[in-house]
Amino acid sequence: MRQLSEHDIEALAIGAAILGTGGGGNPYIGKLRALQDLRNGRSVTLIGLDELDDEALVLSVGGIGAPIVSIEKLDEGREGERALRALEQFGGRKIDALISAEIGGGNAIEPLLTAALTGLPVVDGDGMGRAFPEMQMTTFSIYGHRSTPAAVADERGNVVLFQHSISEVWFERLARATVVAMGGSAIGAEAPMRGSYVKRAAVPATVTRAIALGEIVLGANRDHVSAIPLICAQERGRHLMDAKIVDLKRHLRGGFSVGDIQLEGIDEYAGSRAHVAFQNEFLSFERDGRVEVCVPDLVAILDVDSGHAITTEVLRYGQRVSVLGLPCHPLLRTAEALAVVGPQAFGLDGITFHPLGDHPR
Amino acid sequence: MRQLSEHDIEALAIGAAILGTGGGGNPYIGKLRALQDLRNGRSVTLIGLDELDDEALVLSVGGIGAPIVSIEKLDEGREGERALRALEQFGGRKIDALISAEIGGGNAIEPLLTAALTGLPVVDGDGMGRAFPEMQMTTFSIYGHRSTPAAVADERGNVVLFQHSISEVWFERLARATVVAMGGSAIGAEAPMRGSYVKRAAVPATVTRAIALGEIVLGANRDHVSAIPLICAQERGRHLMDAKIVDLKRHLRGGFSVGDIQLEGIDEYAGSRAHVAFQNEFLSFERDGRVEVCVPDLVAILDVDSGHAITTEVLRYGQRVSVLGLPCHPLLRTAEALAVVGPQAFGLDGITFHPLGDHPR
Repeated sequence: MRQLSEHDIEALAIGAAILGTGGGGNPYIGKLRALQDLRNGRSVTLIGLDELDDEALVLSVGGIGAPIVSIEKLDEGREGERALRALEQFGGRKIDALISAEIGGGNAIEPLLTAALTGLPVVDGDGMGRAFPEMQMTTFSIYGHRSTPAAVADERGNVVLFQHSISEVWFERLARATVVAMGGSAIGAEAPMRGSYVKRAAVPATVTRAIALGEIVLGANRDHVSAIPLICAQERGRHLMDAKIVDLKRHLRGGFSVGDIQLEGIDEYAGSRAHVAFQNEFLSFERDGRVEVCVPDLVAILDVDSGHAITTEVLRYGQRVSVLGLPCHPLLRTAEALAVVGPQAFGLDGITFHPLGDHPR
Repeated sequence: MRQLSEHDIEALAIGAAILGTGGGGNPYIGKLRALQDLRNGRSVTLIGLDELDDEALVLSVGGIGAPIVSIEKLDEGREGERALRALEQFGGRKIDALISAEIGGGNAIEPLLTAALTGLPVVDGDGMGRAFPEMQMTTFSIYGHRSTPAAVADERGNVVLFQHSISEVWFERLARATVVAMGGSAIGAEAPMRGSYVKRAAVPATVTRAIALGEIVLGANRDHVSAIPLICAQERGRHLMDAKIVDLKRHLRGGFSVGDIQLEGIDEYAGSRAHVAFQNEFLSFERDGRVEVCVPDLVAILDVDSGHAITTEVLRYGQRVSVLGLPCHPLLRTAEALAVVGPQAFGLDGITFHPLGDHPR
């Protein structure tokens, strides 16, 4: 158990953006809010999975919607708390701790904001070990937890409670329609989980790992060295390409940012071409007609100089980027998981998932 | 207080369809289910507004969505009960009675089905005295009742609870998005009301009046006379035109059936042309460039021979129809009401509401 510092939050935002593989929402605004909370005397306590009581009720809280919307339609601040209170009222029991449904992007920060307001601790772990676009794509759902009753709150004060859905995909469909009607982004909280289940199903220690990734980037920039090989070393990842973005298709479809990025190699990669498909997150890296990395493994696109992640909503023609492939956690590579987060689940037909080496733990 | 008979339900379905002004859902399938309930030994008790306890909790139950969908995507049967139980669980108090949000169309029958399953009485009255396409268009909403917390249930078992919305229009927007995601039709129940409020805000005795209208049609057909003048007499309405449908535009937009009907006069109306616009319900009757009847007054399109209502989803080229204008209840003609259910609320710009005579009570 420890209190998160301002430095932790700075590093977490950087590391979470890398694990976000382009999505999960840009952590920048959430980071500013979390820093402000600390400066206002609030605090955020991080607890390890081993410190969690088996009987504790743990709530996952996070943003839902298209990242490209959430950077313009700002949160009001207490959405997560309103969703939490609605679920407490419906269930008749208090929540004991918060957890991120996805460590990738802004959703790494979202539980911290609700924690600062409510005084509840945040569990060191999450339900993806990265970011994914849909809500049934968490290890919590994959290994049997039902997301309903769940709540979605918007910045105006509207709160919708998904009392019961017949499947995780139906929950995703109904919640997505609500979020689109709310303007394209909102904060959601899924059915509270027992501590004993979270210990089994969560991707462990991902808050700590994201902070460590952020510290690598901050350190490399301070020392004027490239962060890329250091990131690959920590995550046992592969440096796939340095490239320039030469074409970019991006549009909003059904509440998602979807599109495709064309890359042309630079420096030692000059002469080679590749492309990356995305649905909020980067889905696949394909070079010379061969898919080299695909979901659930991570495709990260980082600024070639700073090592900072570039999220899909700030991608631009002409950017010079490093593309990395990072192995996902073993919890995402089981047959049950691949049915939900493998290439076919994203409509990437004809692509077989070939694991990209071993996850660092 | 009285038990509804099979004859009452047959007559109610006919009368409700006339008051539905083309919408509210076709009562046919609901009627079959209600008759089956009675034959299975269940019963439905109708109570007058004066018999309602001031402290009673009254729940409005009804179908939401496009009528054209609900005649193909059938209800499972216990949707209303599931919505009711979700609201009881959330509010921590039992519901005492049911009421129709709209007497027009299938929503006259919907509370009867939930009443037969739960044993709760149905109040003789409703929130429209007719049908309207949107949920904020009830006298309950207009005179200050907030619809949330409300619940929407589909035939699969999904239940969504609208815990809090910042306005009636936001409730409508969010619930509509949910219903569209559910496939275009579902059953909804709005926040329970106190008996004392229902006595003040409900359009009174509309179940009884709809049954009386149905009895007129049944009697006229038995006696081989036209029902049209008898209906006009009971409702103090105006026989506008007998006509043939010569053109029909109808499409599904945002979960609504919208369109326009072109009419060419027949018999004594030969040579004159008119058209009727609709959004689930008929909105206006315009002849020779002049709007003669518009919302909130009722435009009813009936079969020229039988006097049975023709709902928007079964309108067809070549049908021979009688068009009637019926005055709405005074509760729909106040300034507060016209802001919500007057012509401007339906985008009929430049049209002023000129009341069509007095309502029969």
